Amino acid sequence: MAKFIRIDMGTRTAEIGACPEKYAGLAGRGLTSMFIADEVKPTCHPLGKYNKLVFAPGFLTGTSAVNSGRISCGAKSPLTGGIKESNSGGSFSQKMARLDIKALVFEGLPADGKYAVVKVDKDGVTFDEAPAEIVGAGNYDAIKVLQDKYGPKVGVALIGPAGEMKLSAANISFADPEGNIRSAGRGGLGAVMGSKGIKAVIIDDAGASAVPIARPEEFKSAAKRFANALTTHPVTGQGLPKYGTNVLVNILNEAGGLPTENFRRGRNEWANNIGGETMAATIEERGGKTTHGCHAGCVIRCSQHYVDKQGKYITSGFEYETIWALGADAAIDDLDAIAYADREYDEVGIDSIETSVAVAVAMDAGVIPWGDAKAALDLIRQIRQGTPLGRILGCGAAAVGQMYGLTRVPVVKNQAIPAYDPRAVKGVGLTYATTPMGADHTAGYAVATNILRVGGFVDPLGKEGQVELSRNLQIATAAVDSTGMCLFIAFAILDIPDGFNALVDMINARYDLSLTGDDVTALGKTILKAELDFNRRAGFTSAHDRLPEFFEEPCPPHNTVWDFTDEEIDSVLAF
Amino acid sequence: MAKFIRIDMGTRTAEIGACPEKYAGLAGRGLTSMFIADEVKPTCHPLGKYNKLVFAPGFLTGTSAVNSGRISCGAKSPLTGGIKESNSGGSFSQKMARLDIKALVFEGLPADGKYAVVKVDKDGVTFDEAPAEIVGAGNYDAIKVLQDKYGPKVGVALIGPAGEMKLSAANISFADPEGNIRSAGRGGLGAVMGSKGIKAVIIDDAGASAVPIARPEEFKSAAKRFANALTTHPVTGQGLPKYGTNVLVNILNEAGGLPTENFRRGRNEWANNIGGETMAATIEERGGKTTHGCHAGCVIRCSQHYVDKQGKYITSGFEYETIWALGADAAIDDLDAIAYADREYDEVGIDSIETSVAVAVAMDAGVIPWGDAKAALDLIRQIRQGTPLGRILGCGAAAVGQMYGLTRVPVVKNQAIPAYDPRAVKGVGLTYATTPMGADHTAGYAVATNILRVGGFVDPLGKEGQVELSRNLQIATAAVDSTGMCLFIAFAILDIPDGFNALVDMINARYDLSLTGDDVTALGKTILKAELDFNRRAGFTSAHDRLPEFFEEPCPPHNTVWDFTDEEIDSVLAF
Repeated sequence: MAKFIRIDMGTRTAEIGACPEKYAGLAGRGLTSMFIADEVKPTCHPLGKYNKLVFAPGFLTGTSAVNSGRISCGAKSPLTGGIKESNSGGSFSQKMARLDIKALVFEGLPADGKYAVVKVDKDGVTFDEAPAEIVGAGNYDAIKVLQDKYGPKVGVALIGPAGEMKLSAANISFADPEGNIRSAGRGGLGAVMGSKGIKAVIIDDAGASAVPIARPEEFKSAAKRFANALTTHPVTGQGLPKYGTNVLVNILNEAGGLPTENFRRGRNEWANNIGGETMAATIEERGGKTTHGCHAGCVIRCSQHYVDKQGKYITSGFEYETIWALGADAAIDDLDAIAYADREYDEVGIDSIETSVAVAVAMDAGVIPWGDAKAALDLIRQIRQGTPLGRILGCGAAAVGQMYGLTRVPVVKNQAIPAYDPRAVKGVGLTYATTPMGADHTAGYAVATNILRVGGFVDPLGKEGQVELSRNLQIATAAVDSTGMCLFIAFAILDIPDGFNALVDMINARYDLSLTGDDVTALGKTILKAELDFNRRAGFTSAHDRLPEFFEEPCPPHNTVWDFTDEEIDSVLAF
Repeated sequence: MAKFIRIDMGTRTAEIGACPEKYAGLAGRGLTSMFIADEVKPTCHPLGKYNKLVFAPGFLTGTSAVNSGRISCGAKSPLTGGIKESNSGGSFSQKMARLDIKALVFEGLPADGKYAVVKVDKDGVTFDEAPAEIVGAGNYDAIKVLQDKYGPKVGVALIGPAGEMKLSAANISFADPEGNIRSAGRGGLGAVMGSKGIKAVIIDDAGASAVPIARPEEFKSAAKRFANALTTHPVTGQGLPKYGTNVLVNILNEAGGLPTENFRRGRNEWANNIGGETMAATIEERGGKTTHGCHAGCVIRCSQHYVDKQGKYITSGFEYETIWALGADAAIDDLDAIAYADREYDEVGIDSIETSVAVAVAMDAGVIPWGDAKAALDLIRQIRQGTPLGRILGCGAAAVGQMYGLTRVPVVKNQAIPAYDPRAVKGVGLTYATTPMGADHTAGYAVATNILRVGGFVDPLGKEGQVELSRNLQIATAAVDSTGMCLFIAFAILDIPDGFNALVDMINARYDLSLTGDDVTALGKTILKAELDFNRRAGFTSAHDRLPEFFEEPCPPHNTVWDFTDEEIDSVLAF
């Protein structure tokens, strides 16, 4: 029977119970969001005793379904003040699923202010003091110490120095199968983990049985059809494996939607120097890996090992959004410098999007010069040092904007707007404005249909069709985020109907259900409604669903402006 | 005919028109709040082009009515994100009134990023570049430079370095009749002034006629009765003139409501060292002034000249709330050190309450040691230097709390809670929670009835009667803030009915009206409703009307907790 584990960090005790009936039909984001909406006081301080942190694998996690190893983390966000689900790769989720743990809930605050390592295995939950050498240390070293102590194959969730300092953009880091780093990046959930005195959570699935499948033959057949959809779709079968997500730099630059110099324009002259094609060629020339999965069973393999000139590993999971933010938004025309910054973000445990956008805002404020790679790296390293400037940066773009008195601060609900200009990719602009998560491209990735022509085509520069596009993608995403699947499967299932059917079939076969596509839509709506309701009780209104006023300025080269009316924006999630 | 002046800082042009009909019956806070609610886009960036800054004298300003010289400043607040009225003494308001200017409105943003001095006199409005020596300079020197240039008697409103840096707690400073400094302190309106490129506004009333009085004999008689009430009431006639507002330190300490060490307890052992009695004795011994008015015509004279051991002026307007915040909340047992800090706040132009509470939060975070006067002064001086830490401090208590990951952050709507613990003076706690201004004791000073037994008595430690008390005081205050009167007149008019009647009679005689006490109440309600409606449109809900959760902890010595239900809190302004 699926376990539901509540851990009180005040008493360092665990209560291992059966999953409550109301959460039995939920997983991933569906479970984390319904739980937070049920149990967390919406007006609470995100770092205080009333907040809770919950981890949940998806419906299909732990099975042989490809790309199903994502872990959902949920809490009230210290960055946005609203509900937050942030998910990540790594091996944590699959091990949780194999231990048949539906959710791990962390409550309370530590009595002594010390950091614990919480270990979960088939025998239960144990608490150790965090080894002194990992407190304040970078995440790469900390993972080594933890895997030396607890076993080389254990799943690890941990916070770095940013989470220890409870900075608003601190992430939760996860070890991937090679001991490198994956992140639940957005919304500062690492600060919540830090506030609860949790340095790391170890999942050891030794002795666990395989995940049970109710109708195994049906599952096997559906899993094959599903994998086939992923490997044959041009985005998931070719573009992402070959160039990683960074394939988008040149595409967005061409589309005029690559925000440059703190969102002053949507195209620049140096984009190809930092683009996916250049990156892949560089990695190949240096003997790194151009393709690599963040969790076992991934067939998209959009990760890579980015290496230095001597072929030495610098970073992996080197994403388009990070490269955009430093490479275009902060005008740093140097992939190596950006790779070292990405490494530092992983070491300190901080959101690479939020922090990089904050670097660009700091440049706009004159803190450091535009495009100065060395100054940017020095600035980013101040986070780990805990200097006042490092703390400002580590609290995100809005904090930099406030401390330096700027109005050109690209945030919604206090969270940085990512890599697609909302004036040139208007569908994703509606997602930024309305998602309960704060500005987040992954919450309803209209870039797919606006730019990549996946799932049809809606003109990125026009308003027509965008409300429905953002709405439908947000609903679908809330459901996909509940499956444990990587969101990139959406490219394939939007275009290949049998891919979507196979996904539903796998869930049905796993749990002996008979869900239809309509049930998936209904689930997505239920999740969004719960999230919106939490935010309403936390004090959010439609006034918070607005982009910053500087998006009224035309964005070159198309010179389009953000021109949705309040009524149009408010209709996106009115269902 | 009363003038209504709109000044566009983008074009540096002024439009001098008649006061619009809808504002003709308003003045002071009534005018500023109705205007902001009418004309400012509630979701705008406070430092952006859609915000407006308005100055307005009160109904009785410029007349011979005692204590009627306050100036109201209004805008959307950079600190709270809500509507803000902040008022001050000085000679600005009386000169505006004598020029028959109902309101001065500043709109737009400077085209060139330069600072202007805007001069207003009987001939109109002129614009000069700010003298280079005052940009970045302290306010005392800047006022000297400006009065040398524009005349020794002109009214001056100006911003210091904090306003130039657009820090969220920057105030607007006003020259008093001696060229010393008074402040519209709360809510960061100095940052709005800075964003509009206004270094100073000069009011020269040379050649202006006396303020017209419709029924002069009636006015004269009422003014006499009114002055009589102020001079005979024990608070306004004795306590405040003798000890200043700092008379409250020992009173609140005795009452167990003097927040000490970041609101950990309500009483301490050193209070008398920083109290009003000690302060008055020190000033007398050193040859300073124990009593002094902030504007011409003040009979309460609660200000003073605090001097050093050599008798040299350090500061004036040295208020209880500032002395409490550094002296008890930050545990600095040294009046001289607090006086130097107060001087620095005036020089840099920043809210002494917000910043001092922020100092205590920084001590709680371990940035500097508790009670370390030298470290605190060094920290405060970093604001002027523009260091990252200085900017964090200058953005207030909430910013310090966020950057250092604390939950013990005494703010409501992002504004610091002042000098009265809401667990031991529960009526004012309801005011903190519900006023549209963010935590503000002056918005409904229930301390009067809870502690000073003015206007009756309501037990400070109980809940009974507090909802009505806070409501009635908030309504009355909104009206009083429209008269140009110093709020301290409330002590007298709450206890002496003829004082209140005389106030209404003066307004009637001035404008040839026949208002009653009910009209005054109706005005107060109208103002509050407009302010609440602005905040609602800006995104505020009842979720923002909550005190921080740490007030659930018992507050020694009475060990009472903050125990109002949400429903009770929400009933305060439900009229």
